[in-house]
Amino acid sequence: MSERIVVGHRGASGYLPEHTLPAYAMAHSLGADFIEPDLVRTRDGAFICLHDIYLEATTDVREVFPEARREDGRWYAADLSLEEIRCLRVHERLEGRFPRGSAARFEVPTFEEMIELVQGLNLTTGRDVGIYPELKAPAWHRQNDLPMEQDFLEIVQAHGYDGGDARIFVQCFESEPLERLRRLGSRLPQVRLLGGGDEVNEALLDEISGFANAIGLAKSLLEANPRLAEWAHQRRLAVHAYTFRADDLPGHFSTFDDELALFFGEYGVDGVFTDFPDLARRWLSRWCQDSCRPAEEPVA
Amino acid sequence: MSERIVVGHRGASGYLPEHTLPAYAMAHSLGADFIEPDLVRTRDGAFICLHDIYLEATTDVREVFPEARREDGRWYAADLSLEEIRCLRVHERLEGRFPRGSAARFEVPTFEEMIELVQGLNLTTGRDVGIYPELKAPAWHRQNDLPMEQDFLEIVQAHGYDGGDARIFVQCFESEPLERLRRLGSRLPQVRLLGGGDEVNEALLDEISGFANAIGLAKSLLEANPRLAEWAHQRRLAVHAYTFRADDLPGHFSTFDDELALFFGEYGVDGVFTDFPDLARRWLSRWCQDSCRPAEEPVA
Repeated sequence: MSERIVVGHRGASGYLPEHTLPAYAMAHSLGADFIEPDLVRTRDGAFICLHDIYLEATTDVREVFPEARREDGRWYAADLSLEEIRCLRVHERLEGRFPRGSAARFEVPTFEEMIELVQGLNLTTGRDVGIYPELKAPAWHRQNDLPMEQDFLEIVQAHGYDGGDARIFVQCFESEPLERLRRLGSRLPQVRLLGGGDEVNEALLDEISGFANAIGLAKSLLEANPRLAEWAHQRRLAVHAYTFRADDLPGHFSTFDDELALFFGEYGVDGVFTDFPDLARRWLSRWCQDSCRPAEEPVA
Repeated sequence: MSERIVVGHRGASGYLPEHTLPAYAMAHSLGADFIEPDLVRTRDGAFICLHDIYLEATTDVREVFPEARREDGRWYAADLSLEEIRCLRVHERLEGRFPRGSAARFEVPTFEEMIELVQGLNLTTGRDVGIYPELKAPAWHRQNDLPMEQDFLEIVQAHGYDGGDARIFVQCFESEPLERLRRLGSRLPQVRLLGGGDEVNEALLDEISGFANAIGLAKSLLEANPRLAEWAHQRRLAVHAYTFRADDLPGHFSTFDDELALFFGEYGVDGVFTDFPDLARRWLSRWCQDSCRPAEEPVA
């Protein structure tokens, strides 16, 4: 639990459109320890890297498949085949980042493509960067006849991620899928995500420690309860906080480094999800040189 | 002429398949000052990023368009449309680098896509990385009714590269296209490339200085004549040497740093083309801190 990590959030999404191979390659070269793909399934069951279960926030699906719009005004990845989704072009989600009108072509990658990019880069660079996949809305997928857990496990196992020391964290906002993965025999490191609206008490952490190795916390949870990391560490749960954005700094910090210093130094987190992995890596390397101690040993 | 530069050769081609958007993005994040696209034209005149005028060394064109094979056993980019070339997948050229069987999808980008990737990254990172495009075989293209110079100029000018201070070097192994670009009114920095078999004497450098701002030299030329950079600098020509490869180190060097030290420190080059821009950047930053002087001032 003593390793402090930088998670490249949706790749190096501060610099390039999220969840694209160039953004993942960039996160790798900017010093991320883990790279995060979010996973949803296509109509024909492929796992693709996408933050939402729908496509219109980051692709040109409106123009390419106008007829695929559902009555709620959304375009769902689960309604299109992988071949169809390969026709889409990905653009930046947020204003003020990578130019949306850029001619540079970005596409929606599959999970396998993402894994093999990272593993290929590990080979050519001699680094050992892990992956931090999130199962997005597994209950919804199951209702739509696209259960995720078993097929997900087959993919990661086929790519060598096996056992409790594998260089992977499997994250989810739902407990049930993580419990199901354990019942399927997975010993991979698991992370239960908790959002700003969740009530996080010691009983919940007891429960989570039954099937997870870490919690992924909205920053606001730690700001509301600075003892959370201590509670988690007592239960052998590492703590990773999200999301650190140098271009969207909360008003009470004057620099990105100040924000990192508070979360690592005071709140005691073990890792951060960030759109700017180079900046977090730089801060963390300096801090670890100066004053990093192994995280508090679990008391259990 | 005093700036020492690192040119990302075909992108960060030591780590990812050459001339792909991820390889260019990686070169950008690994500290290249300029990124090199090689340019050839398709049947319908698009400029694509490719090292050879044929496609089979780095793509799956044999399988996708078997019928496009010419009698000489080669598949020429000039025989296919851009739309056809977009169907191809790019793989690593060399053994022992990025795995050829990787599921990660790489495609042949257009020149405009490459430029807009670099410019988008300049915007999001605050860096000012230039481009170093090579016109490949312009005489051959002209014979095949695909002259390059005028259309090339229009593309770069449309993207803001204009005048002698533009963050670009236009390189070519032929003199005539560089002279033609000057006649077309271009004042962009130009580089005459010279290969290991060329006889480089002072008369040739006099001639080159009439239309170029730098020479791009095979390393062997400098090893054969260590006064070349001095001759060039006397004619206000910068000197860039190619190609520096940490995984293919000439036998007489024990480290990559030693090779760089000889070429920058002893031979006096102003820049290097390298497949490993991070390593050259690291060496050069340290060296410039310790002992870098502005390159010898032109006497002329």
